[in-house]
Amino acid sequence: MSTFLTEDFLLKNDFAKKLYHDYAKKLPIIDYHNHLSPQQIAEDTHFENITQVWLAGDHYKWRAMRAFGIDEKYITGKASDKEKFLKWAEVVPFTIRNPLFHWTHLELKAYFGIEELLSPKNAEEIYEKTSKMLQQDTHTANGLLKLMNVESLCTTDDPTDSLEHHIAIQKDASKVNAFPTFRPDKSFAVEDVKSYNSYLSKLEKASNIIIHNYSNLLEALENRVTFFNDNGCKLSDHGLGQLYHFETEKYNIASIFDKVKASKDLKEDEVAFFKAKTMIALGKIYHKKGWTMQLHLGAIRNNNKRLLEKLGPDTGFDSIGDYSQAEALSGFLNTLDSTNQLTKTIVYNLNSADNDVFATMVGNFNDGTIKGKIQFGAAWWFLDQKDGMEKQIDTLSNQGLLSNFVGMLTDSRSFLSFTRHEYFRRILCNVIGTDVENGELPNDEAFLGKIVSDICYYNAKNYFNFK
Amino acid sequence: MSTFLTEDFLLKNDFAKKLYHDYAKKLPIIDYHNHLSPQQIAEDTHFENITQVWLAGDHYKWRAMRAFGIDEKYITGKASDKEKFLKWAEVVPFTIRNPLFHWTHLELKAYFGIEELLSPKNAEEIYEKTSKMLQQDTHTANGLLKLMNVESLCTTDDPTDSLEHHIAIQKDASKVNAFPTFRPDKSFAVEDVKSYNSYLSKLEKASNIIIHNYSNLLEALENRVTFFNDNGCKLSDHGLGQLYHFETEKYNIASIFDKVKASKDLKEDEVAFFKAKTMIALGKIYHKKGWTMQLHLGAIRNNNKRLLEKLGPDTGFDSIGDYSQAEALSGFLNTLDSTNQLTKTIVYNLNSADNDVFATMVGNFNDGTIKGKIQFGAAWWFLDQKDGMEKQIDTLSNQGLLSNFVGMLTDSRSFLSFTRHEYFRRILCNVIGTDVENGELPNDEAFLGKIVSDICYYNAKNYFNFK
Amino acid sequence: MSTFLTEDFLLKNDFAKKLYHDYAKKLPIIDYHNHLSPQQIAEDTHFENITQVWLAGDHYKWRAMRAFGIDEKYITGKASDKEKFLKWAEVVPFTIRNPLFHWTHLELKAYFGIEELLSPKNAEEIYEKTSKMLQQDTHTANGLLKLMNVESLCTTDDPTDSLEHHIAIQKDASKVNAFPTFRPDKSFAVEDVKSYNSYLSKLEKASNIIIHNYSNLLEALENRVTFFNDNGCKLSDHGLGQLYHFETEKYNIASIFDKVKASKDLKEDEVAFFKAKTMIALGKIYHKKGWTMQLHLGAIRNNNKRLLEKLGPDTGFDSIGDYSQAEALSGFLNTLDSTNQLTKTIVYNLNSADNDVFATMVGNFNDGTIKGKIQFGAAWWFLDQKDGMEKQIDTLSNQGLLSNFVGMLTDSRSFLSFTRHEYFRRILCNVIGTDVENGELPNDEAFLGKIVSDICYYNAKNYFNFK
Repeated sequence: MSTFLTEDFLLKNDFAKKLYHDYAKKLPIIDYHNHLSPQQIAEDTHFENITQVWLAGDHYKWRAMRAFGIDEKYITGKASDKEKFLKWAEVVPFTIRNPLFHWTHLELKAYFGIEELLSPKNAEEIYEKTSKMLQQDTHTANGLLKLMNVESLCTTDDPTDSLEHHIAIQKDASKVNAFPTFRPDKSFAVEDVKSYNSYLSKLEKASNIIIHNYSNLLEALENRVTFFNDNGCKLSDHGLGQLYHFETEKYNIASIFDKVKASKDLKEDEVAFFKAKTMIALGKIYHKKGWTMQLHLGAIRNNNKRLLEKLGPDTGFDSIGDYSQAEALSGFLNTLDSTNQLTKTIVYNLNSADNDVFATMVGNFNDGTIKGKIQFGAAWWFLDQKDGMEKQIDTLSNQGLLSNFVGMLTDSRSFLSFTRHEYFRRILCNVIGTDVENGELPNDEAFLGKIVSDICYYNAKNYFNFK
Repeated sequence: MSTFLTEDFLLKNDFAKKLYHDYAKKLPIIDYHNHLSPQQIAEDTHFENITQVWLAGDHYKWRAMRAFGIDEKYITGKASDKEKFLKWAEVVPFTIRNPLFHWTHLELKAYFGIEELLSPKNAEEIYEKTSKMLQQDTHTANGLLKLMNVESLCTTDDPTDSLEHHIAIQKDASKVNAFPTFRPDKSFAVEDVKSYNSYLSKLEKASNIIIHNYSNLLEALENRVTFFNDNGCKLSDHGLGQLYHFETEKYNIASIFDKVKASKDLKEDEVAFFKAKTMIALGKIYHKKGWTMQLHLGAIRNNNKRLLEKLGPDTGFDSIGDYSQAEALSGFLNTLDSTNQLTKTIVYNLNSADNDVFATMVGNFNDGTIKGKIQFGAAWWFLDQKDGMEKQIDTLSNQGLLSNFVGMLTDSRSFLSFTRHEYFRRILCNVIGTDVENGELPNDEAFLGKIVSDICYYNAKNYFNFK
Repeated sequence: MSTFLTEDFLLKNDFAKKLYHDYAKKLPIIDYHNHLSPQQIAEDTHFENITQVWLAGDHYKWRAMRAFGIDEKYITGKASDKEKFLKWAEVVPFTIRNPLFHWTHLELKAYFGIEELLSPKNAEEIYEKTSKMLQQDTHTANGLLKLMNVESLCTTDDPTDSLEHHIAIQKDASKVNAFPTFRPDKSFAVEDVKSYNSYLSKLEKASNIIIHNYSNLLEALENRVTFFNDNGCKLSDHGLGQLYHFETEKYNIASIFDKVKASKDLKEDEVAFFKAKTMIALGKIYHKKGWTMQLHLGAIRNNNKRLLEKLGPDTGFDSIGDYSQAEALSGFLNTLDSTNQLTKTIVYNLNSADNDVFATMVGNFNDGTIKGKIQFGAAWWFLDQKDGMEKQIDTLSNQGLLSNFVGMLTDSRSFLSFTRHEYFRRILCNVIGTDVENGELPNDEAFLGKIVSDICYYNAKNYFNFK
C-alpha cells in the first residue's frame, strides 16, 4: 500500500506515525540557517510567478536540468519564466530517487495544495494556478513563511551589510522574525588581493574605522559583530573548503596584512596562515557575545571555470571535496578552547565519508559547561536528502547524543523550501519508530515523543536563545 | 520463504518482481567494458574444461583461495585443471556473503543449468558435466555470449594492438559484436624508463611514425586513435591510482620526453606532470572523435612485491587506495572543458568512501549539451557486489539523475561473468520496487518500467552509439 | 511487538533466533584484546560499588556526560561514588541510540539481573542493590568473568611490565586464563625525547640490557618479547594514528637513536623514520615467535589540551582521524612479506570510511600459507556499536572471507563489558539470519550454525592457539 505523499509519507510503522502526527508535526519552525533575502521579507514581496520563487536561484534544479540535457537558455538564460517552468516540468519525472523529486511534490502540496505529480501533462495548468495563488496575500514572502509555521529564521549576511531590512522587519510585528547571521568569509579572502582591498573599503565604510593595519581589521570586524549583535544576531557562519591550523607563528600576521594592503600577492601558505589567524580572532569575538559559530566545511567550489565566468558563483558548479579535515579542525577548536574562549559551535561536513570524523571531533570539546555545546551539524547541501539525513542521525546517535541535537535548517534561497523541516521530521520519527518496532528502543511514547519534540524545536529554542 | 537462486532471487516485493520479469530480464546486454580476449571470440574457442573458462585468470577467486589457506600450487601453480577445480569447490561454501558465492551459483545455473550448490560433494560430477557441455557448439566463446543475449561488447586494448581479431569478428556475422577500447596506460608510464622506451618502439611500429619527440608521441597516439575508430572503437579507458593536475606549466613537457628518450630517470613530480599533460592531450583527441572517455580511479596495485615477482601483475594483489581525488579530477575535467573539448566521460571510483565526491564532481561538467554527458560509473571491481551496486545506485540517485545512467558492465576476463548483468538488474529492480512499496516512489509501473529499461539497455545504446 | 532486551533482542527473524540460541549463545568467550587490570584478576578484587567497576576509567560514559552538560566534578572529580552514579543515571535515558544505552542495560541485566531501565527514578535503589551484589564472591573480578563464560583473555601490557600478576594468575587454577599482550608503543615514542630516555631506563632495568645504541634497543625488546612469550603471550598490539613507510634508507637509524640518547630533538620526519624502522624490526621478532601482530590505526588523540593537562590521557578526548593509510600500510606489510617474515596480523581501522581500504589491503598478503592469516579486525572503539559491527561484517564479507573471521573482543577497561560479545553474537546471527530470510543465503542451518560458531569461538581458538 503506497503512502507516496499521503499524510503517512515516509512513516513506515505505527510508532513512527504517532511520533510524527502527535509530536513533531505541529511544532513551529526555527530555521536557524538559510539564504533568504531579508529585503523580500521586509517588503513582503508578491512573487510574479512560480518560476520567480521556485526556479530562480535554485542551483539544485539547474544541475538536474543540465544533466538531463536542457539548454542553458531554459535554465539561467533568456527563455521566459513560463518556458523555464515547462522545461523543468519535463525533467521532474526523471528526477526519481533524487531529493528534488520529493521536495518538488512536497512543496507543491504544502504551499499550493497540488497533489498531482508535476509533468509536461499538467505543467501549464500548474503554472497558471500557482502564479494566481502567488498574487494572494496568503502567498507573499511572509505569507509563505507563516503557512509553514515559521517562528523565526536566520539569513546569511556580510559584515558590511547595513541590516536595514532586518531592522525594518523587527519593527513590524506582521513580519516573521528574521535575524541576521554574520558571515565574514570575504573579510579574510586574501587569495584575491584586488577584490580583497576593495572589500576593505566597504568594511571601512560600514564600520567607520580606517583599516590601516591588521589590528584595525579586527577592530572593524568586532565593530560589525557588535552591530549585528545589537540587531538580534546570535550566530556566525563560515563556508570553507577546510580550516587551516599552524602549530607555530610561522609568519607575522601584521606583515602579511601590510603586504596585501600594498597589493602584493601572497603565497598559498601565507593565505592559509592569514585565514587561520583571523578565524581564531573571530572565534574569540563570538565567544564574548555568547554567539554560536557555524563551520560549513568541505565544499570544492567553482569547478567549472568556463561556466563560472559566464554565470558567476553559486550557479551549480560546486561539489564535495575530499580534504583532510581532522587535524586542522582539532587544532582550531583546541586553540580557542585552550584559553576557554571556544563558543557554542556547530560543525557541518559536506562529505558523508567524514561523518565519523566530525561527529567524534566535536565530542572532544564538550566540557560539561553547556548542554550540547559543540554540535555535529545537520545533513547539509548535497547531503540534504533522506539518505544523508539518516546517516547524519545515525552517526550522531552512535558518536554522541542525538537527544541534544538542535535539528534541521533549510539552508535555502527559496521561500518554498520549508517543507524540508517536514521532510526531516518525518525521517527522524521514522528512524526512532523503526527502532522501537525492531525492539532496539523501549516502547515509551511519552519519552520518545519528548525527544522528538526537543530535536524538532525545543533544543534549538534553548540553544540559540532568540529574543 | 527462501528465494535463494529462484526466479525471484533478490526481488523482495511484487513491484520489484514485475519490474524485473516484465522489463529488465529480456533486454539484450551491451557490455561496454570488459577484458575478454578478442582472439577467443574470433576463433570461437572451445574451452577444454570449466577451469579454463572459469578459474584461469580470475584473481577474485584466487584471493579467496589464498585467504582460505589453499596452496598456490592449486591456484596458479602446477596442479591439474581438475585438482584446481576441486580445491575451488572446497572454498566455495566458505565464501558465503562474498559476491563470489552468488556469482558462482548464478553462473553455474545460467550457463550449465546446475542448481545445486557447488561443494566437495558434487565437485567432481560438476567438473565432468560442465567440461562435457563446454565441448558443445552452444558453449563456445560466442555460444556463451549468445546464451546471455549479448548484443555487443567492448574489450580493452593497447594502442599498439593490431585489432586483427576485432577485424575478423566484424567480418563474420556469426560472431558477437566486439569492439575495441583504446587503453593507452602504457603510453605515458614513464616511471619505468626502460620499459617505456621499449613500448615506444612498439608504438612506432604500430603507427608507422618515428617518435623522436613529444609531438611525435601525440601524432602516433592520434594515429592509433584513428585506426581504432575506423575499427568500431567508441571508448577509451584509463586505469590510474589518481589523476594529476598542475595549475601552471611547471615543466617543459618536450624536455621531459627528451630526458626519457635519453634513458634518464624522472623525478616523481615530473612523471606526474607527464601523465597530466598526456591525459589532457588524449582527452582532446577523444573529443574530436566523439568517443566516451572512461576513468577508472583509485586502485593501489601490486602491493605484494614478492608474489608480483613470482606471478606477475593482475594476479590478485591489488586493492583499494585512499588517494585524494577531488582537486585533480576537477582540474583535469575543467582543463578539457575550458576549451569546450571535454568529451562524454564516465568516472569510476574504487573506494566507496569517494562515492559522494565523484558523483557530485561529474555534475559540475554536465552543461546541458548531451543528456547524461558526464556519468558516475557503475560499481567497479571490489565494489561490484550487491552492497557496492546499491550504494552506487543510491549515491547516483541522490547526487544526480539515476534515470540517465548507462548501466552495468562486467569488467571481467571470463566468458562466464555475464550473469553480473542479471545480478545488477535484479538489484536495480529491487531498489526501485522497494521504494514503491515504501511509498517513496509513486506506483507507476509503466514509467518505472521504462526507467529500468533505459538503465539496463537503452541509455547505453543511445549514449555509445555502436554501429 | 517489542523485543527490547528480551531473549530475542536484536534477532529479527526465526533463522537468526535459531542461530543465536542454538549455536552462538552457549559458546565460551576468548577475549583476545582488552585493557583489564591483571592485578585485579590476580587479587580477585571485590569492587566497593558499581561506580568503581563501571564508571571509573570509562571515558565512553564520560564523553556522554560532558555532552549532556554534567559538571566534571561528577565525572572525574571529587563527587562521591554515589553522586557520580546518580548523575550518570540522569544521562542514561538521553543516550538512546548511542551504544551506551544498549550496553548499560545489557550489563545491568547480565551481571545483576536488573531488567528495568536505569533512570533517576531507580538509580538509588540500583546503586544499593548492585553494590551489595559486588560484595558477593560471585561478583569479584574473576566471578564477573566466569559469569560471562570467559575462557581466556588478553590484557595489554608494556614491555617493561614484570608480568607478576599474569604469572600469579597462571599458577592459580581458580583464576580465569589471562595472557599478556606486548604493546611497545612507548619503545619508539621518540617525539618526546625526555620521556623517551626515561622510558629507556625502565626498559634497561626490565631487560637487564644496557641500551647504548639502537642495536641494544632491539636486543632489549627481543629479550622482553621472549619473556612475554615464556609467560603465555601470543599477541602484540600497536596503537598508532598511522603507519609510516620509507622506500629508501633516508636516514641512518643508529644515528637517529644516538641523537635521542644525546637528548636532541628530532625532526618530524626522523621520528616517522624511527617508528617505521622499529615497527619493521618488531614485526620480524613477532614472526620468529609465531605471534599475531595487532595494528590499531587511525585515532587522533588528546585533541583537547586544556583537559589533557587537567585529566591526563585516555579520559575522553580522543577521536577519529582521517589519515591516508593505504600506502604506508601496504609498504609496511610488504616489507615484512618480502623476506617472508610477515607474521599473522590483524589490522583494525578506526575510521569507517577506511573499511574498504583495510579489508582489501589485508587480502594482498594472504598467501595461502595460513587460513585467515591477515585479518580485517573487528569494529573498534568508536565503531564498536551495532552500525559499526554490521558495516565491518559487511565489508569483510564483501572483500574477504567472513567465515575466517576471528571475531569480537571487548577492548574494554571494565569487568562489566563482556556482554559486548553477546551483543556482537546477536548482531552476527541477525545479519546471517536476515540474509537467509531474504533468500540471499541458502537455508542451511547446520552449515550456517557452524560458520557462526567458528566466528564466535573456534576461529579464535585455532588462530591464536592459547595454551
